[in-house]
Order: sequence, then C-alpha cells, then structure tokens
Amino acid sequence: MRPSELPFGRVLVRGRVWECRREAGRVKLLDRPAYDSRAGEAGEAPLSECQVLAPTRPGKVVAVGLNYRAHAAEFGLEAPDEPVLFMKPASAVIGPDEAIVCPANTGRIDYEAELAVVIGRRCRDLTAADAVRAIAGYTCANDVTARNLQERDGQWTRAKSFDTFCPLGPWVVPVAPPPEARVTASVDGAEVQGGTVGDMIVPPLELVAFISRVMTLEPGDVVLTGTPPGVGPIRPGQTVSVAVEGIGELRNPVR
Amino acid sequence: MRPSELPFGRVLVRGRVWECRREAGRVKLLDRPAYDSRAGEAGEAPLSECQVLAPTRPGKVVAVGLNYRAHAAEFGLEAPDEPVLFMKPASAVIGPDEAIVCPANTGRIDYEAELAVVIGRRCRDLTAADAVRAIAGYTCANDVTARNLQERDGQWTRAKSFDTFCPLGPWVVPVAPPPEARVTASVDGAEVQGGTVGDMIVPPLELVAFISRVMTLEPGDVVLTGTPPGVGPIRPGQTVSVAVEGIGELRNPVR
Repeated sequence: MRPSELPFGRVLVRGRVWECRREAGRVKLLDRPAYDSRAGEAGEAPLSECQVLAPTRPGKVVAVGLNYRAHAAEFGLEAPDEPVLFMKPASAVIGPDEAIVCPANTGRIDYEAELAVVIGRRCRDLTAADAVRAIAGYTCANDVTARNLQERDGQWTRAKSFDTFCPLGPWVVPVAPPPEARVTASVDGAEVQGGTVGDMIVPPLELVAFISRVMTLEPGDVVLTGTPPGVGPIRPGQTVSVAVEGIGELRNPVR
Repeated sequence: MRPSELPFGRVLVRGRVWECRREAGRVKLLDRPAYDSRAGEAGEAPLSECQVLAPTRPGKVVAVGLNYRAHAAEFGLEAPDEPVLFMKPASAVIGPDEAIVCPANTGRIDYEAELAVVIGRRCRDLTAADAVRAIAGYTCANDVTARNLQERDGQWTRAKSFDTFCPLGPWVVPVAPPPEARVTASVDGAEVQGGTVGDMIVPPLELVAFISRVMTLEPGDVVLTGTPPGVGPIRPGQTVSVAVEGIGELRNPVR
C-alpha cells in the first residue's frame, strides 16, 4: 500500500497526542494530519502502546437528516426533496472506547450508525466530481440523539449536541466504501440497525457538494451521511458499536 | 478605565492579524485574546491604520430561536417553554464592513439584530451566577437568515449557515448592557427593528447557563441571544447595521 492509501488518525502515546498513519501493528507518527501534503514523519510507535483517539478534531460536523428512505419511513416521514442539514458541535466529539454519557432527565437516548466523511482541503461550491479531491477519507460515526428532546424542540440541535454525543473513529480510510458496504449498529454485540451505503438517497459525494454550496468546508471537518433504519435506545451499562464494512468498527460504552 | 474594562477585538494592521484592546484612537496589540489572563502587550497602532475584524474566531456559534415574545408573535408562534437552540458555523462569521453575500436562488434574505455573548473560559454545567465569570463580554451580531429556505427545510441550519451570514463586532465590551439597552437593526440608515435586552424571555446569563448544561463552551465561542420583533428583508446594494446601546454598531453592505 502507498502511504496515501493507509488508514490515518490520532493517537495518544508517550504522553502526547499525535497525528499518525496506521501500519500493521504500529503507527507512523506525523507532524501534521495525514491529508496535509506537508505532513512529515516524526517517529513511530507500537499500536499496542497507543490510545486511539477520534481521528480528526473537526471545526464543524455537518449532518443530514433522513437520508435513507426506510429510516424516514420509520418516523412516518417522506424523504425530503433536498438534504435537510443540521450540525453537531465539535465539543460533542469523542473517540473509540470513550463513554457516551447519558445526560440526566432527557428521556430516551438513541444510537444512529453513520458513515462519516472527513474533509481534507478547504473547499466551497463543489460539484460531486470535485468532491472526490476534497475528501480525505471515511470513518464511522454515531449520531447519538436524545429522541424525546428532538421531538419536543422541533429543532434537532440540542438533542444531538450533548458532550460525548458524537463518537468518531477509529481510523480514517482514504478509500470510499462501495455501494454494497453495510452500515450497522450493534448493542452488546447484537446487530440492531443496518443498511448499505448504496441505500442513501443523496450519496456522499453529492452530499459534500451540496453542503459546500452552503458553507466553506475546512480540513478536518466532518460530514455525517445519515442513518439507516433501525434506530433504537441505549442505556447505561451497554456497549454500542457502529461498523462500516471496509472502514472499521467504532465501539463505545454507555454511562 | 482598567484594561479589563476596555473593549477588545481583532485587527489587521501592518500585514498581520492581531488580538487587541481598543483605547482612545489607538489599539494595544496583544499576543493572545484579551480575555486570556496570559495575554501580554506586543506594541500598539493607531486605530486609523487598522482594519477591524470580527472580534473573535469562535469554535462554535450557538443561537436561540424566538427569545422575544413579540418576535415569536410575528411568526404566529407561541414562545417556547425552554430555549430552542440552533448553531451557525464559524465559516459564516465576517467582521464589520465586510459584505453579506446573498446566495443565488434562495429567495428572501433577512437581517436579525442580536446581542452576542463572547465566552472567555472553558465551562460546562454553569448556573446563571457562574455564567458571569465565564463571559468575556458582549458584541453585536446579525443572524442573517434565508427565510424561504428556513421555512422549506423545517430545520434552520441551512438557512442560517451560508458564508457571510454571521457578521460579528465591531468590539467586545466586557460590561453587560443594562435591561433598558436597545437592540436595533437599520437598513440604509432607517431603523427597522428594535427591542431591549430586558425584553428577552431568557436573559443572557440564564441562556449561557442553559447551553452550558448541553455542551461545553470554549473561549471565543459565541452565544446569540435571539432577535426582537421587526425582522425583514435585505437586498444587494443596501447597508444593514445592528446596534446594541452601550456595546456598538455593526455595519455591513449587502451584495
């Protein structure tokens, strides 16, 4: 594999946070994010000594509602004509194995398995064809949602913005998953939600292009591509995992 | 005035962007934001040589809908029981005198005059009393909104997130405006919108505390406190200004 095809992300090792590329059993430490053409190697470390962190520190996380027909149907909604956008704050981002913390008095907390796109360069007004070059890679995300608050507020922001409500990771894979790649969530090891990348109403490249026609995207920003049918609740003590075939598996305990 | 009571912000001078405090006719250049206790002076410059920029580079901009009863009424809506939150991306922030750019094919674009709160320290789970210490100061904001898209999407994010849709400034004043301070918008010099800080349903300190119980706030983050009645459209060629009594006036041409 060429370095540009290796998974990349961020680790805590030897008391410091590093950008890195993952190789078999070890990481190459980098002085900048792997998608930055100026990135240089700054050493290496065994993967076993590393704590894997969220693979990007996004300026913003832009997400889309109801991007799978069967998920819209489970809420009794029509799929919208155009993507309906919302945002999650960077303060909600956590990495693999970090705990999702259920806030008090907020009712039902749901997992939502999603394919996440990581932006690699500053861009705006893209076409879907341009978007290929703007994307650094793909990772897994859990769009954790306080379902009762979402219904009560009408606007989705509060329900989706609590600290720890945006697990990301474990690694960013620079190669797009094929349409048949499955996006799934499991609770305590049992699969509870699933669809394929090809089921999306607006596929990732078109979605990134659409968002870039609203707002400038910056390196490290994240685009969440919507969740397949089968959303459901999580409770403290459970472990939830999001998997995207060919991309990875993101596991988080719930507190 | 003690330095801690002086307005602060950011300027472009001598080819570089600086944090600064504003004194009579000049600015004291700083090596960090004025609200950072480690900030030190790094020179000074005549105000006349400075381009005044947006006074903070927020990680996030969190805003509240319908925080004035009379504004809710103009949309035929009840004021909500709890603040309804939404976010604008940092990529939408511009400074004084920068142009608000109306995107093509988006229908009506509205001004919304708002008092903005700038956060000075990392905080979460605040009470309203704690919020006083977490706030670095107050400035003016224009929550520019593509009104037709807002109605069509249901979610407000896209309508409020276009590049240039979050003018901020010109300066951050470290002293809270009194309840009788007016928040107004003018188009081409004629006042078109107005209310007072005291008209807010949820006052600034309680609003910051409420948001901090959802998400960690970071230094430089901005909280928009809602808009008074009288929102209306702007068109290319006009100039819109937002004024908050005792805080300042933020003027932007529309393109």
